[in-house]
Amino acid sequence: MQPRFSLTADLVFSKEIPDEALPAIERAVEEANTVLFRKGVPKDAPEDEIGRITGHSVAGAALTLTLVSGGYTRVHDALFRFRKHVAGLLGRHRIGLRDLVVSDYRVELRGEVPEGLRLPVLPFIQSAECGPERIDLVLAVSAADLENKIPDRLIRLIEEKAEAAAYGGKTEHWELVYESPKREHSYREDPTAEMIRRGWIKHALSRGQWIHGPQSTRLFRTFEAIVLEEIIEPLGFTEMVFPKLVPWEVWMKSGHAKGVYPEIYYVSVPKTRDPAYWEEVADYFKVTGEVPIEMIREKIDGPIGGLCYAQCPSFWPFVGGTTLTNDCLPARIFDRSGTSHRYESGGIHGIERVDEFHRIELLWLGSPEQTVETADLLHERYRRLFDEVLELEWRSARVTPWFMAQEGMLGGEGSERIGTTDYEAVLPYSDSWLEFQNVSVNGDKYPRGFNVKVQSGQDLWSGCSGIGLERWTAAFLAQKGFELDDWPAPVRRRFGDAHEIFRFV
Amino acid sequence: MQPRFSLTADLVFSKEIPDEALPAIERAVEEANTVLFRKGVPKDAPEDEIGRITGHSVAGAALTLTLVSGGYTRVHDALFRFRKHVAGLLGRHRIGLRDLVVSDYRVELRGEVPEGLRLPVLPFIQSAECGPERIDLVLAVSAADLENKIPDRLIRLIEEKAEAAAYGGKTEHWELVYESPKREHSYREDPTAEMIRRGWIKHALSRGQWIHGPQSTRLFRTFEAIVLEEIIEPLGFTEMVFPKLVPWEVWMKSGHAKGVYPEIYYVSVPKTRDPAYWEEVADYFKVTGEVPIEMIREKIDGPIGGLCYAQCPSFWPFVGGTTLTNDCLPARIFDRSGTSHRYESGGIHGIERVDEFHRIELLWLGSPEQTVETADLLHERYRRLFDEVLELEWRSARVTPWFMAQEGMLGGEGSERIGTTDYEAVLPYSDSWLEFQNVSVNGDKYPRGFNVKVQSGQDLWSGCSGIGLERWTAAFLAQKGFELDDWPAPVRRRFGDAHEIFRFV
Repeated sequence: MQPRFSLTADLVFSKEIPDEALPAIERAVEEANTVLFRKGVPKDAPEDEIGRITGHSVAGAALTLTLVSGGYTRVHDALFRFRKHVAGLLGRHRIGLRDLVVSDYRVELRGEVPEGLRLPVLPFIQSAECGPERIDLVLAVSAADLENKIPDRLIRLIEEKAEAAAYGGKTEHWELVYESPKREHSYREDPTAEMIRRGWIKHALSRGQWIHGPQSTRLFRTFEAIVLEEIIEPLGFTEMVFPKLVPWEVWMKSGHAKGVYPEIYYVSVPKTRDPAYWEEVADYFKVTGEVPIEMIREKIDGPIGGLCYAQCPSFWPFVGGTTLTNDCLPARIFDRSGTSHRYESGGIHGIERVDEFHRIELLWLGSPEQTVETADLLHERYRRLFDEVLELEWRSARVTPWFMAQEGMLGGEGSERIGTTDYEAVLPYSDSWLEFQNVSVNGDKYPRGFNVKVQSGQDLWSGCSGIGLERWTAAFLAQKGFELDDWPAPVRRRFGDAHEIFRFV
Repeated sequence: MQPRFSLTADLVFSKEIPDEALPAIERAVEEANTVLFRKGVPKDAPEDEIGRITGHSVAGAALTLTLVSGGYTRVHDALFRFRKHVAGLLGRHRIGLRDLVVSDYRVELRGEVPEGLRLPVLPFIQSAECGPERIDLVLAVSAADLENKIPDRLIRLIEEKAEAAAYGGKTEHWELVYESPKREHSYREDPTAEMIRRGWIKHALSRGQWIHGPQSTRLFRTFEAIVLEEIIEPLGFTEMVFPKLVPWEVWMKSGHAKGVYPEIYYVSVPKTRDPAYWEEVADYFKVTGEVPIEMIREKIDGPIGGLCYAQCPSFWPFVGGTTLTNDCLPARIFDRSGTSHRYESGGIHGIERVDEFHRIELLWLGSPEQTVETADLLHERYRRLFDEVLELEWRSARVTPWFMAQEGMLGGEGSERIGTTDYEAVLPYSDSWLEFQNVSVNGDKYPRGFNVKVQSGQDLWSGCSGIGLERWTAAFLAQKGFELDDWPAPVRRRFGDAHEIFRFV
């Protein structure tokens, strides 16, 4: 959509602007419109697209300016250029610039407005009107907002929304890459129900959360050992420990802050650790046997962030703001030090969809070629693992990764390998496919977000692969059932004689 | 302190109480005061300590009662006994009981009131006056509050506070159990500073949180392997996976809800997963580059609970509400599946005091004898491990466990083995002692809280031992330094050639 801007603002000086300064101001306005605002503008840009001052007046200590523009030297950029220029001029008269007050800011967006476009509701937007071929916005913005590029980002956001509305929302791309041989499945039951019946797992007290007994835990550890032996050790991934509480700053840099909110478990901290401050909460519980939720709400700050969602963002501050030596690339690391949490949609699900889960996260960094090569090596090893070791019926498919969908990153040079490959296993009991892990090549997204460079000055890319132990368990048991004799030997051998610890009357 | 209660309440019936019912009510009051309220009261109880009806009057459909009591058949208990009795009587006149309205409830506590006693501030307390030898309370309580024993719990709470004030707060008991031989410490630096210098760890972006690089992680895994080999396998502990998000219900049953609030990382969930509901938050971030904390606060529910604090409470729903067979005891299990989080006091600390940490939690259940025996076996093995394998300078001491301090559980039959033993290591650089792990015998606290029984009908006890990997690391490196040649062979061998992955320009 084509934007048109208009802006009225007062430049407020330290004292009354004297008459002898007026000619200089006149000349400055003339020069701004003919020279200053044209810097960096392509020669063939239409005249009326370029920012210009259309009115100016002096009253006391204030110089009031009105500007208009299209897409080139937008009014706020023009205003800042002029401010710098005129402040210098008036400095010679010993008058200093004290303030910049924006009294009016309007944006008009011209072009087809798709049906169903929902304009953002934000404090900066004083009014918004939407016609079939134009959107009129009146903004309430301060000078600081303008320096922070609020209008530019706002227009980009509206354009994104318009595009999404035009294309009918997110229709995720899905393209088959590999399909394993079909297999006979003698077992056709829901494995979660059977795990519960056998006492392998029990519902914990929060939603989508299980307590794993010895047998289920042993199966997790069996898969972990197989991943270590077949993937992690041969490809030289080294273990690290990534934090599991994620403050906003991490998600701001990783890009998750653009849209992860509906699925987050949020974390807040006490306003103070002073026991006296919390005494009434403890007293309330002691007297009533109930925890006073509302009272606690008042006593906590934040949220400061949330629980681990994607696992790899928390790694990046380890290298954030640094320049890596060439010889430490490609770098391959992994983390398996804690839980991930997602606020999943309601209702009862089995272990294939849980709010709290356990994942081994692989992460690698390198040049674009090194990053793609690691992904290819992983695909090769996973394929062998699922076909020959776990003997699963599975497939893989390229899908649009979340951040591309959200950031319009699709297309662009050398980006054809950027994206996510989902691994899916068939669940015979429901005749459906379950995504049980993935491999992503993330391009320069994370190095850019966390400001990581390479000594050589070349592009730095990264990739990640999340191995979900609950999902592996769901896929494996759904296809192989609970008769250990039917299990592939490498799993049976490692699982061993996992026995129950608790028996109930 | 000696309590005296007085209560005025209306029993409201379905229709006007007819005159012919009045003699029966008279008789009921007489009978209550002489027989009904004396049931269960010791013969030698002073007359004026026993609940009695001191006034009653009928107006329309309401029977208004005034009761007084000391500690026996307290006024609310007396009221409920009388209600049941009189409802039966009036039922014969085809009049039903419809409501019970408490119009006045006062408590007077007589006895020495310690200086510095802070009375609880709670919605039930309409007014409270504190003299040197008495406390006068006027309560605002409903019939449901009375059935929920609010007055009894409130008085117990005030008595606890009075006791704490009298004894000058928590002076934790500490009694040396064992002291290892003194050792020469050639290394006398702060290990955290050196770990940072060597790139083993970096500050993560939330407080008290570290990202562990390959070497630090390898040290964690080395300790874990030693614990598995020296403790877990020989004593037959079996791995389970305990949840890491802890809803209130768990802490209500474990007793943590009595006082853990100042140190909790609280968790809240979205009011809805509807993306449209969260769009303005995402839009705000996209336009400003800032996460709108206040906007998010309005859009989340809860807190629903908090992050793992003590690790073992989350296990208990696995056996909650069941009766265990005799032959599955003693049961020994452990968990190492994720992080624990404590909101520690501010300022900069090294890895010896962190907000996010990693712990192997051992947990065992059995008869009192079995539970104590497991604790003794653990002490024996830990002693060998720290003296002969890790070659640390350390000591152990019996301390008052938190729940005893909070629940006045000290003393009582067979309880001399209930309690916590802290393990402390000397930090040569600061010449101080660091608690690096503990062993607790918790008595029947958890089985009682989670309602777990044994087939035999005998007492069920439990114990737990938390092995903090950050604390082990801090203690070990503080005493042994960073020269691998100075390390004990079993650690050096397992640590191997842990090398750095990332090098910086």
